[in-house]
Amino acid sequence: MPKLVLIRHGQSEWNEKNLFTGWVDVKLSSTGEKEAKRAGELLKEKNVKPDILYTSKLSRAIQTANIALTEADRLWIPVRRSWRLNERHYGALQGKDKAETLKQFGEEKFNTYRRSYDVPPPPIEASSPYSQKHDERYRDVDPEVLPETESLKLVIERLLPFFQDEIAGDLLDGKTVLITAHGNSLRGLVKHLDGLTAEQVSKLNIPTGIPLVYELDEQLKPTKPRYYLDPAAAEAGAAAVANQGKK
Amino acid sequence: MPKLVLIRHGQSEWNEKNLFTGWVDVKLSSTGEKEAKRAGELLKEKNVKPDILYTSKLSRAIQTANIALTEADRLWIPVRRSWRLNERHYGALQGKDKAETLKQFGEEKFNTYRRSYDVPPPPIEASSPYSQKHDERYRDVDPEVLPETESLKLVIERLLPFFQDEIAGDLLDGKTVLITAHGNSLRGLVKHLDGLTAEQVSKLNIPTGIPLVYELDEQLKPTKPRYYLDPAAAEAGAAAVANQGKK
Repeated sequence: MPKLVLIRHGQSEWNEKNLFTGWVDVKLSSTGEKEAKRAGELLKEKNVKPDILYTSKLSRAIQTANIALTEADRLWIPVRRSWRLNERHYGALQGKDKAETLKQFGEEKFNTYRRSYDVPPPPIEASSPYSQKHDERYRDVDPEVLPETESLKLVIERLLPFFQDEIAGDLLDGKTVLITAHGNSLRGLVKHLDGLTAEQVSKLNIPTGIPLVYELDEQLKPTKPRYYLDPAAAEAGAAAVANQGKK
Repeated sequence: MPKLVLIRHGQSEWNEKNLFTGWVDVKLSSTGEKEAKRAGELLKEKNVKPDILYTSKLSRAIQTANIALTEADRLWIPVRRSWRLNERHYGALQGKDKAETLKQFGEEKFNTYRRSYDVPPPPIEASSPYSQKHDERYRDVDPEVLPETESLKLVIERLLPFFQDEIAGDLLDGKTVLITAHGNSLRGLVKHLDGLTAEQVSKLNIPTGIPLVYELDEQLKPTKPRYYLDPAAAEAGAAAVANQGKK
C-alpha cells in the first residue's frame, strides 16, 4: 500500500538567528544536521524504506534528505526536486528579524502574516538582496508563476498540482514516497490529505526532524490517522515550534 | 558549450582496509569526506557550475556529490542515478583482502585481474555476502544484465549506452554535467572521450576528489585536452593511485 513520509527540515543557520527565511537559501545549523541524522535513524529503526525522494529546491531540505538517507542506507533511491515544495515565500519579511518585524508591524499584523490562512505579507522588492528574482535555480520556471509573497493558501495552490501530477503517480504505484520540505509546504499537504479547515491548520505545528507517516488507500485517502515515528519527541517538538514566535 | 566534469570518489571505509570493493556498498571514510569537500571548494573557486548531476547507485559516489555540491552551493540541481556508472564489478574478489588475493592467485593473475583490459576475475557466487544478487537497489533492472564479474571492457560496454542516451542529451543542450563515480567507470569514459587504446587506459590513473574537466564541441569531441581543476594535486594523487596495489 502507498506510504507517504514527510520530514520537516531541522534548525537552519537563520532559525538560530530568529530571521524570516522563506525562500532565502540558508543551510542547516549543526543542530539541524543532528536532527536530520535522527530522522534517518528513525527510518532505519522503524524499517520505513523510501523508494523515491522528493525535495524542495532549498538546500536545508535537500541536506536533510541527504543526511537522513545516508543514515538509513537509502542514498541510491531516485530524487526529484521542485520549487513547488519550497517553504512559503515570506515576501518583504524575508531576511528580517522576527522581533523587529513584530515592532514594525505591530502584534496584530505580525500574527496575521505568520498565521492567517490567506493574507500574504507585502511582496518583496526585486532589488532586495533576499529576492529570488534572479536566482538561477528557478531559471527553468515561467517567471510569471514565481511568487513575490505567499499566504498558506497560495502555497497550497502551487503545491497541489505537483502532488497530484508527480508524487501521486508514485504513491499509486504502491511506493513509499519520502518528501523532505518545510513547515508551511508540509502543513499545506497535511491540510489537503486530512481535509483540515483553515482554522484547524492554523493550529497545526509540525515538529522538525521527525518522520510523519501517512498510510494511504488507492484513492490516496489515509487508512488511519497520520503518525510520527517518535510520538513523544514529536509532541515535545510541536510545542517548541508553537512557542517559537513568542520570544 | 558543453562541459563534462568528472569526480572520482575519495577514500572509502574499505580502501582504508585494502579490500576489493567493486559493487559492495561501503561509505566514505572521514578522509574521503574531506576529499569530497575539497572537490566542492574547487568547483566554487574555479567557477565551474554543474547544471545536472549523474551518479552511480553506490553510496560513496553519491556522498561525494552531496558533500561537494553542499560546498559549491549547487545542491538544488537535478540528479539522475544509474547502475551503469557503478564501479567495475570485481567478481569473486569482492570483499577480499588485496594482499591475500595476491598470495592466493599469484602476481601474474592478480595483476591481470586488476589491470588487464578484457580479463574479468572469476564470477562471484550468488551465496556470497558480497554478491548484489538480491540488492533491492537493482530490482528495477533486468536481472540478466546485472554482472557477476567485469573487465574494464565490460564496464565500457554497459556504460556507453547510458552516456550516449542520457548524459549526451544534456551535454548537447549545452549544459555543464557533473558525474561522480568510480576509478574504473571514469577510466572507461576517458578512454571513450579521448579515444585511448587498451594499452593507454591501462596506464591511466585518475586521482580521487579532484574535478576533471572536458570542454566539448557539438560532436561531443574534446576541444582541448582534459584538465584537472588542481593540476598539481592531481599529479600527486595519480601517483598515489598508481602505487596503491604495490603495498
